[in-house]
Amino acid sequence: MVSKTQLQELRESRWFSNLTTAIIVLYASALGLKSLVDIDSGYITVMHFLDYFVTIYFLIEILIKMYAEEHFLDFFKSKWNIFDFVIVIITLIPLENSTMAAVARLLRIFRVLRLITVRPGLKNIIDMLMGAIPSIIDIVILMFIIFYIYAILGNFLFESAPSGLWTNFLVSMLTLFRILTFEDWTDVMYEGMEIYPWSWVYFVSFIIIAAFVFFNLFVAVIIGEMENLRDKDDHDHEDEMEKLDIVLAELKSLRAEVKELKSKP
Amino acid sequence: MVSKTQLQELRESRWFSNLTTAIIVLYASALGLKSLVDIDSGYITVMHFLDYFVTIYFLIEILIKMYAEEHFLDFFKSKWNIFDFVIVIITLIPLENSTMAAVARLLRIFRVLRLITVRPGLKNIIDMLMGAIPSIIDIVILMFIIFYIYAILGNFLFESAPSGLWTNFLVSMLTLFRILTFEDWTDVMYEGMEIYPWSWVYFVSFIIIAAFVFFNLFVAVIIGEMENLRDKDDHDHEDEMEKLDIVLAELKSLRAEVKELKSKP
Amino acid sequence: MVSKTQLQELRESRWFSNLTTAIIVLYASALGLKSLVDIDSGYITVMHFLDYFVTIYFLIEILIKMYAEEHFLDFFKSKWNIFDFVIVIITLIPLENSTMAAVARLLRIFRVLRLITVRPGLKNIIDMLMGAIPSIIDIVILMFIIFYIYAILGNFLFESAPSGLWTNFLVSMLTLFRILTFEDWTDVMYEGMEIYPWSWVYFVSFIIIAAFVFFNLFVAVIIGEMENLRDKDDHDHEDEMEKLDIVLAELKSLRAEVKELKSKP
Amino acid sequence: MVSKTQLQELRESRWFSNLTTAIIVLYASALGLKSLVDIDSGYITVMHFLDYFVTIYFLIEILIKMYAEEHFLDFFKSKWNIFDFVIVIITLIPLENSTMAAVARLLRIFRVLRLITVRPGLKNIIDMLMGAIPSIIDIVILMFIIFYIYAILGNFLFESAPSGLWTNFLVSMLTLFRILTFEDWTDVMYEGMEIYPWSWVYFVSFIIIAAFVFFNLFVAVIIGEMENLRDKDDHDHEDEMEKLDIVLAELKSLRAEVKELKSKP
Repeated sequence: MVSKTQLQELRESRWFSNLTTAIIVLYASALGLKSLVDIDSGYITVMHFLDYFVTIYFLIEILIKMYAEEHFLDFFKSKWNIFDFVIVIITLIPLENSTMAAVARLLRIFRVLRLITVRPGLKNIIDMLMGAIPSIIDIVILMFIIFYIYAILGNFLFESAPSGLWTNFLVSMLTLFRILTFEDWTDVMYEGMEIYPWSWVYFVSFIIIAAFVFFNLFVAVIIGEMENLRDKDDHDHEDEMEKLDIVLAELKSLRAEVKELKSKP
Repeated sequence: MVSKTQLQELRESRWFSNLTTAIIVLYASALGLKSLVDIDSGYITVMHFLDYFVTIYFLIEILIKMYAEEHFLDFFKSKWNIFDFVIVIITLIPLENSTMAAVARLLRIFRVLRLITVRPGLKNIIDMLMGAIPSIIDIVILMFIIFYIYAILGNFLFESAPSGLWTNFLVSMLTLFRILTFEDWTDVMYEGMEIYPWSWVYFVSFIIIAAFVFFNLFVAVIIGEMENLRDKDDHDHEDEMEKLDIVLAELKSLRAEVKELKSKP
Repeated sequence: MVSKTQLQELRESRWFSNLTTAIIVLYASALGLKSLVDIDSGYITVMHFLDYFVTIYFLIEILIKMYAEEHFLDFFKSKWNIFDFVIVIITLIPLENSTMAAVARLLRIFRVLRLITVRPGLKNIIDMLMGAIPSIIDIVILMFIIFYIYAILGNFLFESAPSGLWTNFLVSMLTLFRILTFEDWTDVMYEGMEIYPWSWVYFVSFIIIAAFVFFNLFVAVIIGEMENLRDKDDHDHEDEMEKLDIVLAELKSLRAEVKELKSKP
Repeated sequence: MVSKTQLQELRESRWFSNLTTAIIVLYASALGLKSLVDIDSGYITVMHFLDYFVTIYFLIEILIKMYAEEHFLDFFKSKWNIFDFVIVIITLIPLENSTMAAVARLLRIFRVLRLITVRPGLKNIIDMLMGAIPSIIDIVILMFIIFYIYAILGNFLFESAPSGLWTNFLVSMLTLFRILTFEDWTDVMYEGMEIYPWSWVYFVSFIIIAAFVFFNLFVAVIIGEMENLRDKDDHDHEDEMEKLDIVLAELKSLRAEVKELKSKP
């Protein structure tokens, strides 16, 4: 039987992750092909086989990773392992003769997400993206408050608009999101101006405020990241200051000794 | 009776601001729900009660904050307190049996803005946004001059356009704002090119100039913020230079003493 | 008669530039108002008077600035003075009884541009914008090459398109500019795909290449500005290195003296 | 016969690259003009001559550059030379009496790309653009995964949509690219919402996720470039630290000598 060390070597080995990548890419290509070609029985058979193969491969791979750990439960200490585990478990749901077959089949697309855990570069980017969230959470709340107020106002002002873009709070939120992407926002505005001629104030102010907040969100994140860089620089700077302090202390004791020397007869 | 210290403790306490947050979120949800569900008499009664409750709660909260100050008028020294005060006062306007009932009801949405003063993170962002305004005020004036000239020109050139997008100065300004957001600007241009075939120069030049000014606005703000960071670094740098000067002074006096020592017989 | 010094004081005085600003703003407002109200004979009379007044005021102002210089021609050493001079001279063209009356009247809008020379803040921004041009000139040339190749290709491929968006080289350039702003670019693409089903490659590649070049233009300008900041820092850094060299030289000569002292009997 | 040194001088000379630039610009203008004017026999003759002339000039120019190298094959060590070589060879394909005449004629547009190799400024920008690719390759892969999952999902959900925007995997990818550019994305969404009322979740989540990833791509590139700058600073910093170490070593040996001096009787 294989030892833990051998399993750990296997887990860290380049060819193992490359094999997993190749299998995922092959599987993804097959899934993508399905909609491009006429599905004949041959294709279905191949797809069936591929499905079983990937399910079993993923299961074996995750079991290897579990056994390679010192202790079985250590596996769940990494959030990326939990992510892998959830994807593998969800796609274990039996596919045939089930009422939810279509949904289960659809869920298998998320197997492609395992590409992220296999490639360290992608893992780093996701970690970086997640790391950026706390610094924008307040701006997102502020954005939500702006959306909320404008949605209530828009619903109140333009509820009767024939396009039905302001019929209730949720639809108004969606319409505001559309305006934020500048997508045919003038059509919405010209319709609103037929109800209240001054309603361009509503639309123009929303665009300017929302764009200004977004603009500053952007600047804030860049400056925040730069401050992180500066803090690292400061650390170096402190090293230099400490060294200068040592130089000064050395000089003082040297001077004291010279003074002593002078006082010697 | 409660003492000033107790009120100050209450004002600073976590649970008090969390309670206010919860009440605002509950109130905002109820307002948002209004447009989603069929309004029956039960909902109206609940909403009525909630309105009175929030009005009284806000009033008590602001009175606590006022009494907690050393002197009553110190409360108005913070612009955020004035902001709170204005919102509370405006939403005190009686709602029923008034001709302005609809407007008064609408104004209550702005109570949601109190979420900003309750959450320090949001307060900081608003302060940051306000702080960014002086650095962009000149660009905004320049943008206005560009808009002004193009609006007068556009009104002069395309006044007769059947779409009515250039009938007067204000409408032309709105049309230019629309062009700046790239929203169906080619429709406006193709209409203009039917009047004067060369009018694409007007539209393309406006987009390039306005986009270039905006682009530089962005860069200017980022560089401005970075210069602020650099100034902080410079301050550290000066500390280092001062320390080096002390080292040099020490060395000079040491050398003088050694020279003296040498001249000793 | 007034002396040169008095004229120079007048030229630099706050109230003089504020007066000029006020007159320009008043004049601009009157011009903007023209399209908003019904033009009656009273308004025309006022406008006429204002026109003559501004023409004379600008003439006097520029003469004051010329006489305030040590030597008459020194005035033309500043490019901002030349800018002012050109605007004043162009708007001196007689208005009535001329075939070009409409154009001459239109040219008067550019008087508003004098606002830039009166306000130092705006002058700085324009200088900054002009200063940014050299750093982007190469990217603009590259952009032009991309546009050129795609325009020739587009004209060759889609000349027969019924929308007439590719009939010749210049129209193709305009269509590509439109695509760059994402303005209804899919309409253009779907039309092209009816001629050649694979022409989405043309459109998608153009958008990705052009957007990528723009994106890097942005980053390049920010990094360029940051390198300028860093060079300033480097200067400070060199000061520090020089001081450290002095410290080392001092130490060496000190050591030499101590060595000498030791060798003394 | 001319010597290697003379050829190298010629290759590096300003006027030679200016001449090449002029010829390319002239040729590009003539190609651009073709679609603007009525093509008569005179123009065709000129164009023919110009074609042969540019073909021969390019051939001579590349031969000069080859002979100027120490060894013939050294020419292919620079990727820019290979780029030039490929363009020259491709456009050598005979034009007349060939079934691919139209394609061959079209390929000649790419001669304009030689402008990049002639101008060092443009070469630097392309090198910079290429240098930016590795830092974004992971984000591009991530983007592709997001597109892939949404394309499969969209194809599954909206395959029956009458607009035919989701008929297969590739078309869905194109539709998603369109949504990413915000181009009439609401039309696509409203159509989807008629099939499944909740499908706005699909569109809004795609826009937010894709925009968020793009936003961070941008920030990552800027921060990456800044870290490069910082590393250069660090190098300087290390110089300073080393110098401080020398100062300390000097001080210590000085102190040792003074101690020795003291112990001397």
